[in-house]
Amino acid sequence: MFSDEAAKKGITFPKGFTAAGIKAGIKKSGNLDLALIYSDRAAAVAGTFTKNQVAAAPVYVSKDVVHNGTARAIVANAGCANACTGEPGLADAEEMGMLAGQALGCQAKEVIVASTGVIGVRLPMEKIRAGIKEAAAHLSPEGSEAAGQAILTTDTYSKAGATEINIGGTKVRFGAIAKGSGMIQPDMATMLAFITTDAAIEPSLLQEALTDVVGVTFNMISIDGDMSTNDMAVVMANGAAGNPKIARKGPEYDIFCATLRALCTGLAQRIAADGEGATKFLTIEVTGAKSFADAKQVAMSVAKSPLVKTAFFGEDPNWGRVICAVGYAGVPMTPEKTVVKFGGIPVYVHGTGTSFDAAALDKVMEAHDITVTIDLGVGEAAATVWSCDFSYEYVKINGEYHT
Amino acid sequence: MFSDEAAKKGITFPKGFTAAGIKAGIKKSGNLDLALIYSDRAAAVAGTFTKNQVAAAPVYVSKDVVHNGTARAIVANAGCANACTGEPGLADAEEMGMLAGQALGCQAKEVIVASTGVIGVRLPMEKIRAGIKEAAAHLSPEGSEAAGQAILTTDTYSKAGATEINIGGTKVRFGAIAKGSGMIQPDMATMLAFITTDAAIEPSLLQEALTDVVGVTFNMISIDGDMSTNDMAVVMANGAAGNPKIARKGPEYDIFCATLRALCTGLAQRIAADGEGATKFLTIEVTGAKSFADAKQVAMSVAKSPLVKTAFFGEDPNWGRVICAVGYAGVPMTPEKTVVKFGGIPVYVHGTGTSFDAAALDKVMEAHDITVTIDLGVGEAAATVWSCDFSYEYVKINGEYHT
Repeated sequence: MFSDEAAKKGITFPKGFTAAGIKAGIKKSGNLDLALIYSDRAAAVAGTFTKNQVAAAPVYVSKDVVHNGTARAIVANAGCANACTGEPGLADAEEMGMLAGQALGCQAKEVIVASTGVIGVRLPMEKIRAGIKEAAAHLSPEGSEAAGQAILTTDTYSKAGATEINIGGTKVRFGAIAKGSGMIQPDMATMLAFITTDAAIEPSLLQEALTDVVGVTFNMISIDGDMSTNDMAVVMANGAAGNPKIARKGPEYDIFCATLRALCTGLAQRIAADGEGATKFLTIEVTGAKSFADAKQVAMSVAKSPLVKTAFFGEDPNWGRVICAVGYAGVPMTPEKTVVKFGGIPVYVHGTGTSFDAAALDKVMEAHDITVTIDLGVGEAAATVWSCDFSYEYVKINGEYHT
Repeated sequence: MFSDEAAKKGITFPKGFTAAGIKAGIKKSGNLDLALIYSDRAAAVAGTFTKNQVAAAPVYVSKDVVHNGTARAIVANAGCANACTGEPGLADAEEMGMLAGQALGCQAKEVIVASTGVIGVRLPMEKIRAGIKEAAAHLSPEGSEAAGQAILTTDTYSKAGATEINIGGTKVRFGAIAKGSGMIQPDMATMLAFITTDAAIEPSLLQEALTDVVGVTFNMISIDGDMSTNDMAVVMANGAAGNPKIARKGPEYDIFCATLRALCTGLAQRIAADGEGATKFLTIEVTGAKSFADAKQVAMSVAKSPLVKTAFFGEDPNWGRVICAVGYAGVPMTPEKTVVKFGGIPVYVHGTGTSFDAAALDKVMEAHDITVTIDLGVGEAAATVWSCDFSYEYVKINGEYHT
């Protein structure tokens, strides 16, 4: 699902989808910065969007498209978020959709619009106009990689995946590209995720599937606790696979959801691992909680703690900071019932530290991937959050990423 | 109140108080690490304590003392937090109080006990025992500075203040020492604040005054969002000034509260300014809110945002990150009614950025003290939070401060 081969295929792996990524001149670096994803037929569309009250203009435009339930294309740019740009910014986002529609021969209301980058700056519309035309001319079944590159900001690599499954005897394909890096926190973030599938499914079920899956994948990432103005995850299902349309819940719907979840889990993990300045990929598992919400709240408290994150950067097995963040998470807990493990090694058991094997723990801390397990000992619910450490590089990137 | 002279007098400025700070050998650095504060007569005592469910042993011991309402002394050590140390740790904290009581000729239940430093390590009791004896032998009216030094961990300087006021025709004195630096967040933190006064006041009124004042001073600081296991603010009022005892609310109580608030405000500001690795002192003022709670929540959201903090470190007037943190604070807001100013210069007005004077704004950003004002435009309530930036040094300190 996440091999190099799958990543290359990405969003163009499902039948009927083409894509392009071009250099419109929006990024100062001169890198790819405008992406277009196109379905050769109408696709059911679903989306989840930032809950930030200061939402960017494209979020409003794309919510309307999702509300209609059908889309043909996604146009996205990096380098400028088109956030806090008022009525003119909204007009710019609407024009992006209109231009893409004109270039592709579909309606503006069938085009998802997304932007990511600096807040508070108007889009350079001359460049956008020329860029959309150019991207439309470059649409291809091999365009996923370029599209994936074109939506990046401070990410160090593009996140992409693809997979094929069997639904009701028909081969169905899924593909995805995503970006993350900074301003990453539950309820979506600077995060963009675009998912395509050639499965046929009712728009309302597609929305339910996406909402459920986002709740346990993209909403379980924390990089810096900042929730962006521009987040969205969008899935287009164009039915080109020819499967009997999934119109109700049942085994077919379950397979669809499981596949979507596996795809989004992989993307979420890679977004966390590639957090700004990250040198460690942290998996925070909370078990023995009374509810999923409790477990998530505790895991997020640990994942967001700057003291925990800097300790992991320093490869310091400072479990005191972990249990401290558990203690202030706002969920009732009892130190005497709680167990904390780093890489499977118990470090805090029922109220006090353990006399762990220091050499074995050093090995855990030196690894790139580290799992922290917290058992609250009061219930059966669990949650997993993916996060990363806090490094000098994070400060550098965000102290120098100027407006 | 915060002159060098006042800082020298500190907690021994009020009549009847002596103090000492000595080297017990707990800190690896060999610096002063054990403080003793003593009142020559019984003093009313009040305290506020961490709400972290993983509270350190001394917190339990000191809560009991405050519950009794009378204290004679405070014994505090730095270098070891005596947190997550189970029953043996609780016994150690109790022994600290007992040893101080023996050395000073008072009861163990009249001794406030405090610890700060690394979590999860037992106190070196041999050193503590010898240290308490030595400290008792060194109690002096000039001992405040040494006591202030002895409670520091990663602070770069000791916070102290003193002041004199007139209550009902009698001169009354206040003094204080405090420490902060890391794990600093509302509801108290690694923070310790010890306040002395020779005013006579009923313990219940003293507690009410302290609780109210802490709510608008120490609980309005955010450095890294981590709430420590060891925080406490304690005030002892020994009545040595001879004022008619403040036994009910009225003008005398109001003067007492105002003085306590001014003293704690100064300490809180200095704790924020000396946050770990801080290069900037940030004052986040939220006005036009519907309630104090709303205003505080918005100010804290901005103060805690790593993206905002790193932007100020980089002297980047990135108002987009500020309005973004306002938008996800969880308080209803309308971008079109909101105004953000940096150093009095409007940067975001009613939904969009302004064309501010870049040179003037650069001057604001280059200064050490920066005030961010956010007017929500929906009410009359306001709140002020003190914070600092996020620097390479923060990562260094916390990546290398090993367990």
